[in-house]
Amino acid sequence: MDDDTANEILDGTYRALCKHGYAELTLQDIADETDKSKASIHYYYDTKEDLFTAFLEFLYGRYTDKVTGVTGASPQARLLSLLDVLLADGEDGPDTEFRTAMLEIRAQGPYNDGIREQLTKFDEFLYEELHSIIEAGIEREEFNEHVDPDLAAEFLTTMISGAHTRRVAVDYSMDRLHETVRAYVEQHLSPEPLEVSC
Amino acid sequence: MDDDTANEILDGTYRALCKHGYAELTLQDIADETDKSKASIHYYYDTKEDLFTAFLEFLYGRYTDKVTGVTGASPQARLLSLLDVLLADGEDGPDTEFRTAMLEIRAQGPYNDGIREQLTKFDEFLYEELHSIIEAGIEREEFNEHVDPDLAAEFLTTMISGAHTRRVAVDYSMDRLHETVRAYVEQHLSPEPLEVSC
Repeated sequence: MDDDTANEILDGTYRALCKHGYAELTLQDIADETDKSKASIHYYYDTKEDLFTAFLEFLYGRYTDKVTGVTGASPQARLLSLLDVLLADGEDGPDTEFRTAMLEIRAQGPYNDGIREQLTKFDEFLYEELHSIIEAGIEREEFNEHVDPDLAAEFLTTMISGAHTRRVAVDYSMDRLHETVRAYVEQHLSPEPLEVSC
Repeated sequence: MDDDTANEILDGTYRALCKHGYAELTLQDIADETDKSKASIHYYYDTKEDLFTAFLEFLYGRYTDKVTGVTGASPQARLLSLLDVLLADGEDGPDTEFRTAMLEIRAQGPYNDGIREQLTKFDEFLYEELHSIIEAGIEREEFNEHVDPDLAAEFLTTMISGAHTRRVAVDYSMDRLHETVRAYVEQHLSPEPLEVSC
């Protein structure tokens, strides 16, 4: 299969997923979003699992490009810009439909090795990216020297995951979640002002 | 319907959900876990949404009992015990099957008012419970007076949600997630040792 064909099918998958959700999605729904027939999509991808493994690989490429494309004058500035991107909402962020479908796909993790492996790549990539920004910030004395980069990267990865889940499940305000995660960086990573008078 | 009938159906729903997941679950699967017929379950609950709204109400009762039943000699001790309960894994925690089904149900939030309202009750209850423990801890000078209880309760609620999602989606170690959240309490809520020599 050439790249154009693959991209057309995977772009169609994106649109079909937003319309129908994961659980209800059929190959026909995807075919309806492309100029390919159901049979020709089936020719390239044997099962829904194969197609979604490829789809997550495709999203992973976009995701890593987006994350590595975030720049900043310093590690702290880059970290805050990265949170702006990852916790964007409304016109700047993905649709609720897409976030919801991604949560459905996360619930496939335990039952589907191909999907879980792809999801793990996103999780590990984000953790490593946050880890390296935090390490660079400590080195530049922009972050507190007592910060443990492993733990801080773990906090942030887990909070970002929780923010996405709460946004979908209970329609929690993404702006509020964004402020919360930002406050963590500002209060707990930055060197604190001394509160001691001698 | 008497309470015994309701409890039997909702207990059966729990078992059927763990076996089949949410998306694939049929009324027949639930009937198979009880001594009721499909028709009689349908008589009590018109739609899958009605049944799941009642089911979440039933789980909410168990959840609030479990959370309020956690005691501790001090606010910090109670908070750490609560994390032990909420982030339990293996034999002490719910099965992967149940966690996974709950993540599927969270992905119903945007499309299902009854389910979203029930999920919001869990989210708000946990936030309020954490908030009151943190406030009590600050009052007793067990937690740092500079801690903002709103923000700290938000951090913890979001991290707990993220821990559950990562556990399901990428099979992340719950023990590691538990240690991470615990470290937040120990490092960021507790009064910090002064690092200043005068």
